[in-house]
Amino acid sequence: MSNFLTEKYTKLAPYVPGEQPKDKKYIKLNTNESPFPPSPLAVKLANDEAKNLMLYSDPDSRDLIKEIALYYGVNTNQVIVTNGSDEVLNFAFMAYCDSKTPAIFADITYGFYKVFADVNNLPFKEIPLKQDFTIDVNDYIKEDGTVFIANPNAPTGIKLQLTEIEKLLQSNPNRIVVIDEAYADFSGESMVNLVDKYDNLLVTQTFSKSRSMAGARLGFGIANAKIIEDLNKIRYSTNPYNVNRMTASAGIGAIKDKEYFASNVEKIIKAREYTQKELTNLGFSLTDSKANFVFTKTEKIDGETLYLKLKEKGVLVRHFSKPRIKDYIRVTVGSIEEMQTFIEKVKEILEK
Amino acid sequence: MSNFLTEKYTKLAPYVPGEQPKDKKYIKLNTNESPFPPSPLAVKLANDEAKNLMLYSDPDSRDLIKEIALYYGVNTNQVIVTNGSDEVLNFAFMAYCDSKTPAIFADITYGFYKVFADVNNLPFKEIPLKQDFTIDVNDYIKEDGTVFIANPNAPTGIKLQLTEIEKLLQSNPNRIVVIDEAYADFSGESMVNLVDKYDNLLVTQTFSKSRSMAGARLGFGIANAKIIEDLNKIRYSTNPYNVNRMTASAGIGAIKDKEYFASNVEKIIKAREYTQKELTNLGFSLTDSKANFVFTKTEKIDGETLYLKLKEKGVLVRHFSKPRIKDYIRVTVGSIEEMQTFIEKVKEILEK
Repeated sequence: MSNFLTEKYTKLAPYVPGEQPKDKKYIKLNTNESPFPPSPLAVKLANDEAKNLMLYSDPDSRDLIKEIALYYGVNTNQVIVTNGSDEVLNFAFMAYCDSKTPAIFADITYGFYKVFADVNNLPFKEIPLKQDFTIDVNDYIKEDGTVFIANPNAPTGIKLQLTEIEKLLQSNPNRIVVIDEAYADFSGESMVNLVDKYDNLLVTQTFSKSRSMAGARLGFGIANAKIIEDLNKIRYSTNPYNVNRMTASAGIGAIKDKEYFASNVEKIIKAREYTQKELTNLGFSLTDSKANFVFTKTEKIDGETLYLKLKEKGVLVRHFSKPRIKDYIRVTVGSIEEMQTFIEKVKEILEK
Repeated sequence: MSNFLTEKYTKLAPYVPGEQPKDKKYIKLNTNESPFPPSPLAVKLANDEAKNLMLYSDPDSRDLIKEIALYYGVNTNQVIVTNGSDEVLNFAFMAYCDSKTPAIFADITYGFYKVFADVNNLPFKEIPLKQDFTIDVNDYIKEDGTVFIANPNAPTGIKLQLTEIEKLLQSNPNRIVVIDEAYADFSGESMVNLVDKYDNLLVTQTFSKSRSMAGARLGFGIANAKIIEDLNKIRYSTNPYNVNRMTASAGIGAIKDKEYFASNVEKIIKAREYTQKELTNLGFSLTDSKANFVFTKTEKIDGETLYLKLKEKGVLVRHFSKPRIKDYIRVTVGSIEEMQTFIEKVKEILEK
């Protein structure tokens, strides 16, 4: 840190991404990436576009937004695209929270929400999940402020029912509810179709997980047109060309290649079910994850030791030191072969 | 705008990028893009990387930063890479300005500085350029605050001498001076080599202009390691994966392909000199631009009319309505053929 850094950031604690060690080749089950390569159509369109890089990208990403709008059955003015869904989430913190309007989110959820509040100098309130890690929307209905809910939640994978979220939206139409659907494609349900019904709903999604494009940086938000206008105002005031040409083209390919997408999602759901069953058989307890990861613990070995022993054996999973979840590990669902290896390694560790 | 937007942004005036009309094919001399395609090596490396998009990019962009550091003869911990240089500039506004430390910049300069100050709710002071559009560093030495200077400046293209900037850096070692070198490759001089000498210097550059990668979104900052640490803290608190895999690879290719880069820069400088000479012969007055654009006016026709008439004839240039520069047009230097056409069209307009 330099002596020049302005005081408000000196105590800022940045987000800590999952580790990306380069010391050896791991089975990488720690950052919820897809085990499958991007759609061949996404690769082709990105590659075709590289020769045009001397020209700025369309700051309104019109071609990409047209495809997303078509896919989700909304109007083009109801969609914003961003450099990962982190960017649209940050814009939402900026646009809809201030000193009088705190951000409200769970104590156990996507770790970036707290960082977005901090970096923007915004007040926030963490609402404890219930003992079983579920969300009770009544806890949020009681609070004033802008609500951020990851659904399914991370790192638990637990899904909140659509009717519950509707109850929250209806309880106070004067505040924004942001539903972060990074993992929704693995859950079989999305709130996107409710944006016309609720003016105060913003749904965010990402191409990073179900569409195998984590390394392309593409996320989006869907809401009523006025919300999108707000978010674009902030986008045009920070980085109008936020989505590069190759990524925009890859996004079009990924959206158009519906079969490839559906087949990959199906494979991951099957591999998740396999993993959940095997871990249960080994005496692990698990949350009811509807995401592309499982969240699990056992009384036979503590979370941190299991994480370390798996790493030694070449399997990378994620462990969080936060007290309420320190017994758990979060395991990304990879291919069925990767999950078989993971289960084997767990057995070896437990047998010792 | 929705009713939910927090009060501090309701009056925010976003940046207005150059127009990207799709009604017909233009000779596009309005957004300072390169007329040349990206380096073949940049295209190849980007294309090779597309198949790996399912994995997150390296949040530290180590391979790319290694190449940039090598090229500029600095250490890897003296470099940050960002989603265009707009992102590193925004980080610098965030990190080094606050209610007691205003941003200081010229009245005529890159239009985004004012927007960065506004979006971050920071005080700023605009220092008028001299009558001839040059900067007198004494005007900045007098002021407290963090200084942002585009060098060469936009839209004038006028370059401030390195010794003048050193005078500014030395006059107050307790404040940051940001030198925005978006156009420096066309000027034959950079401040990069001074970052070890001055703790309070941050130099920013972009791959958008001289490296033909506007559509890839890649910029960088070079400074002493503590400054880079500050900026990375903010990057990790907003968007740690800000540079996507394909762009990072393209960047490596662009840096490695030194001959292609040098040859393109030389062609643009020659086309600039051609354009300056021809316009002078036609009675235009010009600033002494060292960038990839010329800034010019004539008493025969006002700036806006000339812009509109050129647009009618299929040549897009940029006109700014700000009073001090409303008589001028800014013309990106394209290929020599494009500039010949531009001159022809200007002649046709003047002859009428």
